[in-house]
Amino acid sequence: MRSKLRFFFMSPCEKFRARGRKPWKLGVQILKIVMVTLQLMLFGLSNQQVVTFQEESIDSFRHLFLKDYGSWNDETFSVYTQKDLYEYMAFTLNQYVQLPCLSLAKYGYLSDNNGFVAPLNVCKSFYKAGTVDPSNESFTINAVIKKACVDVFPLIPLNGTSIDETKNVLVTLFDKVNLTLDLYRLISVEISFRLKTINLQTVRNNEMPDCYLFSISVTFDNKAHSGKVKIGLDSDAKIGECRATNVANSSLVQKSTRYMMVFDGFVMTLCAVSFLLCTRSLIRSLKFSQEFVKFYTFHYNNPVSWAGRMEFVNGWYILITISDIFTIIGSIVKIAIESKRATSYDICSIFLGTSTLLVWVGVIKYMSYFKMYNILVLTMRAALPSVIRFCCCAGMIYLGYCFCGWVVLGPYHPKFRTLDMASECLFSLINGDDMFATFTEINGKGYLVWLFSQVYLYTFISLFIYMILSVFIALITETYECIKVHQPTSVLSMQPSAHSSHLFLY
Amino acid sequence: MRSKLRFFFMSPCEKFRARGRKPWKLGVQILKIVMVTLQLMLFGLSNQQVVTFQEESIDSFRHLFLKDYGSWNDETFSVYTQKDLYEYMAFTLNQYVQLPCLSLAKYGYLSDNNGFVAPLNVCKSFYKAGTVDPSNESFTINAVIKKACVDVFPLIPLNGTSIDETKNVLVTLFDKVNLTLDLYRLISVEISFRLKTINLQTVRNNEMPDCYLFSISVTFDNKAHSGKVKIGLDSDAKIGECRATNVANSSLVQKSTRYMMVFDGFVMTLCAVSFLLCTRSLIRSLKFSQEFVKFYTFHYNNPVSWAGRMEFVNGWYILITISDIFTIIGSIVKIAIESKRATSYDICSIFLGTSTLLVWVGVIKYMSYFKMYNILVLTMRAALPSVIRFCCCAGMIYLGYCFCGWVVLGPYHPKFRTLDMASECLFSLINGDDMFATFTEINGKGYLVWLFSQVYLYTFISLFIYMILSVFIALITETYECIKVHQPTSVLSMQPSAHSSHLFLY
Amino acid sequence: MRSKLRFFFMSPCEKFRARGRKPWKLGVQILKIVMVTLQLMLFGLSNQQVVTFQEESIDSFRHLFLKDYGSWNDETFSVYTQKDLYEYMAFTLNQYVQLPCLSLAKYGYLSDNNGFVAPLNVCKSFYKAGTVDPSNESFTINAVIKKACVDVFPLIPLNGTSIDETKNVLVTLFDKVNLTLDLYRLISVEISFRLKTINLQTVRNNEMPDCYLFSISVTFDNKAHSGKVKIGLDSDAKIGECRATNVANSSLVQKSTRYMMVFDGFVMTLCAVSFLLCTRSLIRSLKFSQEFVKFYTFHYNNPVSWAGRMEFVNGWYILITISDIFTIIGSIVKIAIESKRATSYDICSIFLGTSTLLVWVGVIKYMSYFKMYNILVLTMRAALPSVIRFCCCAGMIYLGYCFCGWVVLGPYHPKFRTLDMASECLFSLINGDDMFATFTEINGKGYLVWLFSQVYLYTFISLFIYMILSVFIALITETYECIKVHQPTSVLSMQPSAHSSHLFLY
Amino acid sequence: MRSKLRFFFMSPCEKFRARGRKPWKLGVQILKIVMVTLQLMLFGLSNQQVVTFQEESIDSFRHLFLKDYGSWNDETFSVYTQKDLYEYMAFTLNQYVQLPCLSLAKYGYLSDNNGFVAPLNVCKSFYKAGTVDPSNESFTINAVIKKACVDVFPLIPLNGTSIDETKNVLVTLFDKVNLTLDLYRLISVEISFRLKTINLQTVRNNEMPDCYLFSISVTFDNKAHSGKVKIGLDSDAKIGECRATNVANSSLVQKSTRYMMVFDGFVMTLCAVSFLLCTRSLIRSLKFSQEFVKFYTFHYNNPVSWAGRMEFVNGWYILITISDIFTIIGSIVKIAIESKRATSYDICSIFLGTSTLLVWVGVIKYMSYFKMYNILVLTMRAALPSVIRFCCCAGMIYLGYCFCGWVVLGPYHPKFRTLDMASECLFSLINGDDMFATFTEINGKGYLVWLFSQVYLYTFISLFIYMILSVFIALITETYECIKVHQPTSVLSMQPSAHSSHLFLY
Repeated sequence: MRSKLRFFFMSPCEKFRARGRKPWKLGVQILKIVMVTLQLMLFGLSNQQVVTFQEESIDSFRHLFLKDYGSWNDETFSVYTQKDLYEYMAFTLNQYVQLPCLSLAKYGYLSDNNGFVAPLNVCKSFYKAGTVDPSNESFTINAVIKKACVDVFPLIPLNGTSIDETKNVLVTLFDKVNLTLDLYRLISVEISFRLKTINLQTVRNNEMPDCYLFSISVTFDNKAHSGKVKIGLDSDAKIGECRATNVANSSLVQKSTRYMMVFDGFVMTLCAVSFLLCTRSLIRSLKFSQEFVKFYTFHYNNPVSWAGRMEFVNGWYILITISDIFTIIGSIVKIAIESKRATSYDICSIFLGTSTLLVWVGVIKYMSYFKMYNILVLTMRAALPSVIRFCCCAGMIYLGYCFCGWVVLGPYHPKFRTLDMASECLFSLINGDDMFATFTEINGKGYLVWLFSQVYLYTFISLFIYMILSVFIALITETYECIKVHQPTSVLSMQPSAHSSHLFLY
Repeated sequence: MRSKLRFFFMSPCEKFRARGRKPWKLGVQILKIVMVTLQLMLFGLSNQQVVTFQEESIDSFRHLFLKDYGSWNDETFSVYTQKDLYEYMAFTLNQYVQLPCLSLAKYGYLSDNNGFVAPLNVCKSFYKAGTVDPSNESFTINAVIKKACVDVFPLIPLNGTSIDETKNVLVTLFDKVNLTLDLYRLISVEISFRLKTINLQTVRNNEMPDCYLFSISVTFDNKAHSGKVKIGLDSDAKIGECRATNVANSSLVQKSTRYMMVFDGFVMTLCAVSFLLCTRSLIRSLKFSQEFVKFYTFHYNNPVSWAGRMEFVNGWYILITISDIFTIIGSIVKIAIESKRATSYDICSIFLGTSTLLVWVGVIKYMSYFKMYNILVLTMRAALPSVIRFCCCAGMIYLGYCFCGWVVLGPYHPKFRTLDMASECLFSLINGDDMFATFTEINGKGYLVWLFSQVYLYTFISLFIYMILSVFIALITETYECIKVHQPTSVLSMQPSAHSSHLFLY
Repeated sequence: MRSKLRFFFMSPCEKFRARGRKPWKLGVQILKIVMVTLQLMLFGLSNQQVVTFQEESIDSFRHLFLKDYGSWNDETFSVYTQKDLYEYMAFTLNQYVQLPCLSLAKYGYLSDNNGFVAPLNVCKSFYKAGTVDPSNESFTINAVIKKACVDVFPLIPLNGTSIDETKNVLVTLFDKVNLTLDLYRLISVEISFRLKTINLQTVRNNEMPDCYLFSISVTFDNKAHSGKVKIGLDSDAKIGECRATNVANSSLVQKSTRYMMVFDGFVMTLCAVSFLLCTRSLIRSLKFSQEFVKFYTFHYNNPVSWAGRMEFVNGWYILITISDIFTIIGSIVKIAIESKRATSYDICSIFLGTSTLLVWVGVIKYMSYFKMYNILVLTMRAALPSVIRFCCCAGMIYLGYCFCGWVVLGPYHPKFRTLDMASECLFSLINGDDMFATFTEINGKGYLVWLFSQVYLYTFISLFIYMILSVFIALITETYECIKVHQPTSVLSMQPSAHSSHLFLY
Repeated sequence: MRSKLRFFFMSPCEKFRARGRKPWKLGVQILKIVMVTLQLMLFGLSNQQVVTFQEESIDSFRHLFLKDYGSWNDETFSVYTQKDLYEYMAFTLNQYVQLPCLSLAKYGYLSDNNGFVAPLNVCKSFYKAGTVDPSNESFTINAVIKKACVDVFPLIPLNGTSIDETKNVLVTLFDKVNLTLDLYRLISVEISFRLKTINLQTVRNNEMPDCYLFSISVTFDNKAHSGKVKIGLDSDAKIGECRATNVANSSLVQKSTRYMMVFDGFVMTLCAVSFLLCTRSLIRSLKFSQEFVKFYTFHYNNPVSWAGRMEFVNGWYILITISDIFTIIGSIVKIAIESKRATSYDICSIFLGTSTLLVWVGVIKYMSYFKMYNILVLTMRAALPSVIRFCCCAGMIYLGYCFCGWVVLGPYHPKFRTLDMASECLFSLINGDDMFATFTEINGKGYLVWLFSQVYLYTFISLFIYMILSVFIALITETYECIKVHQPTSVLSMQPSAHSSHLFLY
């Protein structure tokens, strides 16, 4: 049993020396790291191109359909006067109608079933009924929200009309379908339309170009009725195969796609092998653990603790197994994308990215076979329970500060607007973010809130940076020293210890 | 006595096991955490809406009444020529007069007692008498400040006039009431008026809309007589119930308000119960402490120290008591707001926010019943006296730097303009704020000041980040190790200690 | 001798208890802290007003005399075309001529000895001779720099002329005095003039207004001959007493000035007393030290080391003495300013600021009489020699990086332009400044420089933040633990030690 | 042997005392530090001028040839409409043609072999064939890229034409050579030309002015076909000697150049001497080491380990040798630059900068002869193996995060766009960069990616800042304490140890 136990905890090198067993698993893992990273990089470059095309298209739409977008500071913009509101609306309509003469890319209008060009939709939402008279502090309101729409066809030439004329045209349009913009009742106006385009550039990478259908909506948001109407453009892309394609070097394109799929298949196979090897090892470990338990109970008449049994389950194998599963899923999605059956680039990148992260972390497993390389892993492993317990306590205080900051400072401070932003802001503050800006943002918002923010920020920062971070360092330092003492291979005396591998169990 | 003492320091779990006493208090606390957090979130969402409406309204006023506000970098703006000054004034007057045709929200002019529309007030402050002749270095001044006002009614149509004409109109207006703008005597011009509006959007959350009265004042500040007149708009909101309201689904609104109040009442009751339980425990502790003192003095003939007596007073109970009081006050204010009897949203949010923070911190109390979870609390508690003493010393140096930085760098560096900003800036620098920007801001302000700022910043940062922070870490590390040694449950040997709860006493 | 020695090292409290000696010195110090801080704050507020007036005046000049200054991003601006250059020049001249109708403050032209209004000076510097023909790669140059000037009187009305006409006028002017702008020879053009103004606002604080003489120069800098002419405005203020003044409440102004001087005198007296007491103590210490040396050599036949003798010299007294000298000098300058005999506000603020810093640091002396408060001071004092030695070594590496960064990255990276900026940038990087921005600034400046900057920044940051800072913390932690062990009053066992004051000696 | 060994490890001071050997080497090194730093500073100032001239010239070109460059936020800019595209092209052509009347510097057109002025080249790249119809989702494409060019001579006066006319002119030009801009096929348009200029300002430093040839290309990039055409200007400078020069004080210029070369020669000689001395020492060490090995094996019958032999090789000598080689190479390049035979300023600055860095680091060698100064060096040396091993493990996790961040966040987050930027961003985050901005950048890019970024950033920052940095501090602290214990000269007991120099061996 003892020799079996010793063999069980040997490194691949030692196993080879002891019984001549060749390190197949190690070889598979090294090949896997190279392959998975290569696959990730290939996918990354292709993914970047697709996302960039979408981002740039949305950027183009914003510049084409939003007036003076170049001078906006932000992706949303607000207008404050009636004249501006009508001008911005008219601009969007005008640009849609004149699109073919304006845009640098070739956009196609969508056609409906009868072959006619699809119109642009202008929809307004408003309270069903209501009159407001602030001077007399009186109002009548029916909070039921109604919606009314009107179509604008690109065929109607609004071309030569100046801004003022277009305003008239618009007002006329609204009148026709009883769509007067009663601003005190109006909740929002949405101008929506769809455009088609083709992402040609992929042809240079020997990939077949995709057809894109962009659903674009420009929103004029008057929900708050505060005299400020927010304007924004949203766009949603649907990627699909084009109907009629004719590429000069189509054979090359097909070949390149096929090679890529073969490569993906190879990575998948590799991961499957690695997965099988690891699960085999895991199952063996469990069996061996049961055997050992029987042996131990028999000889020493003492039950083996749960922690003792866990020693036999190698956490690294679990990590590698998860990484393999992620790679396989990612590769399947990748093949689906390449064969134009799916367009979920994000899901694929998350799976492949996470698996690569895990694969690289897994390299540490093989490093820790060389003595003294595993000090980081050992320290982190030993400190983990204390760290988790410690984080629970610190987390409570952190949560309390999050809630408190969100509710008190949220309305006045953009960094505390939502709960997750408050959390991000506090987390950043602990780690040395721009503190002065956070302090001064609250100036001039009322003395009480300012005073509270001062107390809040000074106590939070002092507590977390000075107290809690220091305790954290103390905790890790202590664990490290503990590990050092138990491990005979200290920094200065360099003799390797015969028992150091056992430490890993512990 | 001994068993009593042991029972006194037991955790709820142990008490349950020992005597079957059910953990009522624990149950109340857990329910309270859920309820208080829920209440906070409900209030937070409603509060955010109210504050956002006010902020957006002020933003609208700034865009409506301040010329070219969109291109300002800041909330204040300065003009430097006479022409600009007159143009900015004329713009504000013009916009007020034309308001109904301009604004996207419906604003109502205030009417005076006779039902007439209230005018806009233009007031100027100036030195009583004075002539200035810089060429001859001579001046006559009477520093008594006088004020003169003129009313502008929205009925006077300044509508079709161009900027130059308006300037004339304005000058005429000033002339009429002997209000010539002698710039060398002028201290400030204030244009003030009031507008009414209704915050309709709350109707969607089944709350009754409020009526707002905004007192707006545009100030042209020439106090410094430096050739730079600062322009700014301030607005003060007064929230009140509307006089005549007619909401279609008024029954729903009333029901929703009632439910909310019932919920608030429930939270208050819960807090009252928690408050009573905690005060009972506190009183019992004090009584038991006296009993113990008698017992101890009798048996050991040795007086119990003040610190020893304090062991019986549980700091957690005091924390929970304070949190309960804050929640109750906050809930009362919240009910007053819901029933439209108060509008102090800030006070309510501060009370509720602080109480939630304390409630979450209080959770640590229950965590520390589980062994090993209280290492953070123990370390912080043990380190507290040293930390406070340490902070006193460091605080003296910090204060010295604050004063020194404010007086020397203040006039040249925006981050040191006031004492509290200097303190914020130095505090941020310690914690890793944008240092290079702070360094370079002082460039080109004279060699002496630059040299001083270099010495000042280098010494301050080195002293605080390297020396003082390091001592702090050393202090905490030492305390932590001390605690570890006294507490048998080390990180590596996981057996729970029977005596660890006693450590908490200490 | 022993009792004398013991008495020497007693705290004021102990001295009072031992011999009933009243702590006069302590009383004087406490009064001094209050007074010095009060004086600093009074001066700070008045100083801020003076500096703000100057800064705002320069800002006004920039807006008045530089075209489109409002849209500049920086204090310097560049023009790239000949048309722009002439326009910017013409604008400055035009504005000077029309100043009285433009400015919001009242500026007076300077008059020369004959009572005529002083002209504006336009001076150009240029190479004595030279022709440049880049097409043929040939040039003739005489590097001697010549200067030619022309006067422009505000009486010449350039008023109604448009930009293009003014350009002609200018060109004509230059022609008249043979001042053609041969751009390839031109080094710089400087337009300089002087304006007078009065800082009236001080009258509200019951101070007599000052007369200011601003020497303004607008520079068009073509030194680099790179096709980019930099424009900037510099202004130099001279503050003086006005000649003819007539203030309505002049008696009040005089009284307020007198009170202020009395207060300053009181502070000076206080500091003089403190200075005398401290020097007396220092002299006594030295005498006592000599006495002790004799005694010790006689009894123990062993010479006292230099370090042993230094124990008798109290560093705190030296600190207080320096602070007193600074306060007295600062107060003298302050009185000179108040009596209008000096205008060196900066020097005064530096002296007063530094003295206040030292006074507050000096408070720690009295804190350290209470046991356990002096742990910070003790640790810092004990660590000082190691820290200095450590800093010498680290400083060498730091200096090497500074030189290297300046010469290699300087031309490409604005943060490394000069040696002191490189030092500031590296110092900021160690303390967590905006690192990503520093990294990316160098992108696109050539591959070699980019690669070097990567190696440079990664190694510098890793070396300093990870290695050197960690060694620093280790150094302080070790000293702290050492101090703790020697000082019986540990954090946990709270008994005060009888010998702790001796530790201070050590 | 023993005395020899002792002598070998003596410091120069001790050697002088022991045998009267004068410290020549030390003298050479000190002189070298001064000289090398002086040389670096002289070169730095001259280098800065050259680079500044190039940077300012490129800036001038951008302002001259790119429309509205002053209002761009970035060095690249995008246009979105056909009208803008033609306007920006026409502007560049127009400016080139009118250059002599526009620019403030004197630029010369290049002439071809026949003496005619060289034309500006307009080249467009486009797909060989293709039609795109997004409405029908059909396209025909031949991905072969073709290029077509047209010349525009500065002689053709496009001077008086308005924007619209120029557009027509351009279109006509394109038509003439069958160069219609079919936007759906167009990949890019490049306008390229060359200009000559002379950097006159060096004449003031008594250096001969250089002639510059700038190759400028304005690119309109439509690669992505996303409706966004990016515009950018690149410029490449070639520095050469001018053909015909005539400088008034040419003798002074020549003398100054000669002096500089003599100085460089002196530095080179000094470095050569230092290099020879160091290599001699290194060779002696090796010989002595072999001798010692023989002696040791003979007497103790025990082979000397590799580490033991390395003790005899002084790392400092290797450092100084490298520094010498770098200085010599740098000086040679510097002389080549001064004699107008090379223009590789960057290479020279990198060599001189690196050598200066090494020279300053080398100072620590001499410091460590004084006891107690070498604690930093000893600690870093002792910790190095652990640090490297530790960094390998941490580096794996870091690499994993880099890959993962690049592929998942890259397309959405500008800080993760390329692999090296992702690495810079993560490295900056660890060291306290602007974290909140990094968090919020990803908002509104899809829920899945946002969620991933949250998990990614929180885990990365927590892991690295809290766990890994703390382990690092623990590692250094432990090494430091170890060193302290082995070195008898502790912080508090100041007696120098006789054996401390041996520690350096170890």
